[in-house]
Amino acid sequence: MTEKPLILVTNDDGISAPGIRTLISIMNTIGNVVVVAPDSPQSGMGHAITLDSTLYSERVYIDDGPQIEYSCSGTPADCVKLAIRELLDRKPDICVSGINHGSNSSINVIYSGTMSAAIEAGIEGIPAIGFSLLDYTWNANFEPSETYVKKITEQVLNNGLPNGIILNVNIPNILKKAIKGIKICRQAKANWVEEFDKRKSPQGKDYYWLTGKFVNLDGGEDTDEWALEQDYISVVPTQFDLTAHQFIKNLNTWNLND
Amino acid sequence: MTEKPLILVTNDDGISAPGIRTLISIMNTIGNVVVVAPDSPQSGMGHAITLDSTLYSERVYIDDGPQIEYSCSGTPADCVKLAIRELLDRKPDICVSGINHGSNSSINVIYSGTMSAAIEAGIEGIPAIGFSLLDYTWNANFEPSETYVKKITEQVLNNGLPNGIILNVNIPNILKKAIKGIKICRQAKANWVEEFDKRKSPQGKDYYWLTGKFVNLDGGEDTDEWALEQDYISVVPTQFDLTAHQFIKNLNTWNLND
Repeated sequence: MTEKPLILVTNDDGISAPGIRTLISIMNTIGNVVVVAPDSPQSGMGHAITLDSTLYSERVYIDDGPQIEYSCSGTPADCVKLAIRELLDRKPDICVSGINHGSNSSINVIYSGTMSAAIEAGIEGIPAIGFSLLDYTWNANFEPSETYVKKITEQVLNNGLPNGIILNVNIPNILKKAIKGIKICRQAKANWVEEFDKRKSPQGKDYYWLTGKFVNLDGGEDTDEWALEQDYISVVPTQFDLTAHQFIKNLNTWNLND
Repeated sequence: MTEKPLILVTNDDGISAPGIRTLISIMNTIGNVVVVAPDSPQSGMGHAITLDSTLYSERVYIDDGPQIEYSCSGTPADCVKLAIRELLDRKPDICVSGINHGSNSSINVIYSGTMSAAIEAGIEGIPAIGFSLLDYTWNANFEPSETYVKKITEQVLNNGLPNGIILNVNIPNILKKAIKGIKICRQAKANWVEEFDKRKSPQGKDYYWLTGKFVNLDGGEDTDEWALEQDYISVVPTQFDLTAHQFIKNLNTWNLND
């Protein structure tokens, strides 16, 4: 690549979140950066898209870096669609999403706006990576992530990714010197055991807050949860072909057409 | 099974949509039905969950059938979580979602609230099916679907489904006598080419409507798109382990730890 790569940056915590500001500053050292990110937090939005209402987008100036930035009223997936079809002059060479405030490992990938943005770029044939730090607080320390985020992004730019594959990168919330390295992993089998906090409104109406405990059901030592517990950065190659190919043969024995 | 199965019914078009009313009436012939469905349309919500606001749910009475019904202010995935953790006395024997007004074949599975509800049940270890009719209109004719929806549901109750696998069933919008049967398929490679309709608000602010054309990029004769075009009902076994297992070996050659 003789000219600098065009890098699309997005996230789900909103355009002013420290995580995306860190990601933008790292990407400015690699290529030409265009940011299209939600104007408000969109955590837990999954792969939602805006079908029944309108989208706003405007040029914004948040710091004095060289990047071009747009905020968007839509979901993370909307941001990527709008960037590719409307705001960018050409297809970006890579899309990076994050750095998310909080884990998107194991089953969290399903609920993640950060990963849905990366997956949306992947659907469009753009190499894409979602980055997440295991600290959901606004004041999370992203500094230990920086060299790893840069290295993984450069490797994807150099090696490319096969069509239909996106990287899901999670970073443990520990000091940089404690990070043991990077592990390629599979998504752990895990789930959330929800506990609904039932309350009564001042008007006497019942309502709920969704809370829950994360439960890792997977004892494997090749999973993202295992790697993160062992102080590694986890990288899971992730796909949007959801077909359970291995079960097609079995289903054909059901004789659904009898 | 000596006693009648407990069937959880949900959807993404909202509890009063004709599609879910049809599904409820079919399920009433099979088991004891509890409905927990959104109080308003949630199409395109993907696997969104409600993290930053409250959830309301209330018992509702929409027709004189034997089912028990709750509406919920949340997303389809929220409805399933609330049903399992809070509203049902025991784990349901099956969860059926739909019948969706419109296709959830190929890449649409990613954006689908209907399928995210079924997948959420699958994550909880409940056999689950998402049903969709290829007609997005409110007045869609669900009558041709009925015997097929019943048969597939009964087969899942009889055979069970392996942990981690959900069925994505799509039904062509044709007369019942024109339906050739049921095909087990893989998810076609397809995408949406968006066209943003840019307009100006009365206040002079630019805004967009998301519109687009569906493009099937897959010439295979084993895909859901192919089956539907050939007047078959498509059944895709769908999973929420998004790991691209086949790419792990290749990624390990990248030497990310050098």
